[in-house]
Amino acid sequence: MKWYQKEILLKSRNRGFHLITNEIFNQLPEINNIKVGIAHILIKHTSASLTINENFDPNVRSDMERYFNNSVKENEPYYVHTSEGSDVMLAHIKSTIIGSSLNVPITNGRLNLGTWQGIYLCEHRNNGGKRKLVVTIAGD
Amino acid sequence: MKWYQKEILLKSRNRGFHLITNEIFNQLPEINNIKVGIAHILIKHTSASLTINENFDPNVRSDMERYFNNSVKENEPYYVHTSEGSDVMLAHIKSTIIGSSLNVPITNGRLNLGTWQGIYLCEHRNNGGKRKLVVTIAGD
Amino acid sequence: MKWYQKEILLKSRNRGFHLITNEIFNQLPEINNIKVGIAHILIKHTSASLTINENFDPNVRSDMERYFNNSVKENEPYYVHTSEGSDVMLAHIKSTIIGSSLNVPITNGRLNLGTWQGIYLCEHRNNGGKRKLVVTIAGD
Repeated sequence: MKWYQKEILLKSRNRGFHLITNEIFNQLPEINNIKVGIAHILIKHTSASLTINENFDPNVRSDMERYFNNSVKENEPYYVHTSEGSDVMLAHIKSTIIGSSLNVPITNGRLNLGTWQGIYLCEHRNNGGKRKLVVTIAGD
Repeated sequence: MKWYQKEILLKSRNRGFHLITNEIFNQLPEINNIKVGIAHILIKHTSASLTINENFDPNVRSDMERYFNNSVKENEPYYVHTSEGSDVMLAHIKSTIIGSSLNVPITNGRLNLGTWQGIYLCEHRNNGGKRKLVVTIAGD
Repeated sequence: MKWYQKEILLKSRNRGFHLITNEIFNQLPEINNIKVGIAHILIKHTSASLTINENFDPNVRSDMERYFNNSVKENEPYYVHTSEGSDVMLAHIKSTIIGSSLNVPITNGRLNLGTWQGIYLCEHRNNGGKRKLVVTIAGD
């Protein structure tokens, strides 16, 4: 039984949905030592989120951004928390809808995702900057 | 400390929300050996998802399907990823809203859910076919 | 390697989003014994949910409640599951959108959240009463 935990810094990205499976995996050589386990990934921010989705066609990511911009509007008349910018409250809401952490099974030293699955960083702010993850790995 | 990991195949289901607690539990006799632990369940697809919700009245599941069909429309004019069918982009979006994995506590050889909680397969495609899960169990 | 599991009862709260990080942490002295680990928290109900979000400005929580009330309406003409009250079906839907469980990393005896992150109880019913959580902690 092994436990690893480390912080990873993701480079700054534009508002939108971004495929980061390899950027995460490349910073976690510890996974190679795990035959059966789980990697838990938390994004330590409340204006960005993590999800698993389609890893091939970039249009899926831009359609996703358009859907969420329609569904969580920038300027709702009832928003009170507006002093930090018009992209903040929508970012908090999207973060709660999508979620701030993921669990990914590990099998024989690899993240065990479906063929078409990848990990997305969902950047909800216009200028979110670098994003910090804490990754906790447990396994045999 | 024990680790188990296996793949489970769920039978094909119609588009909609389906209660699958027993179908999962019956394929996991390993849970009987765990006094305290966690079962992690990932669906290895990006057009179906998993959630925990009410396990008694089937109307909850059909109301849920109607809600999500209203909230994530089949043909948004801004969808670009349409070549695989009109039920694909909405399926990806629903999958990110609902989520592709669950953690369920294990207590004394049983999944420890609330009295009214069950596990749903959320099938977002019209003909999604069989769905593959990977289940990872850790416990004492 | 240690495993702990216990049930926690949260006091009754009004419909809305509530910061409960301390109420949870104060009931989990076991976390102090963990150097690296994970706390998994499940709410054993289908009409309330858990999320991680901004821990400072209470307006974020009330904006969040207004957003979800707009996005998941109380009386949709297509709801069939209405006999238990007009706040029930919306509560089930919100619960599936937001999710009924969280994983939080543990580092050196503390929940390892971002500076601005806290745990919310999302109470979707008008009179939900006390809410039961089951917390499972695994770590070294």
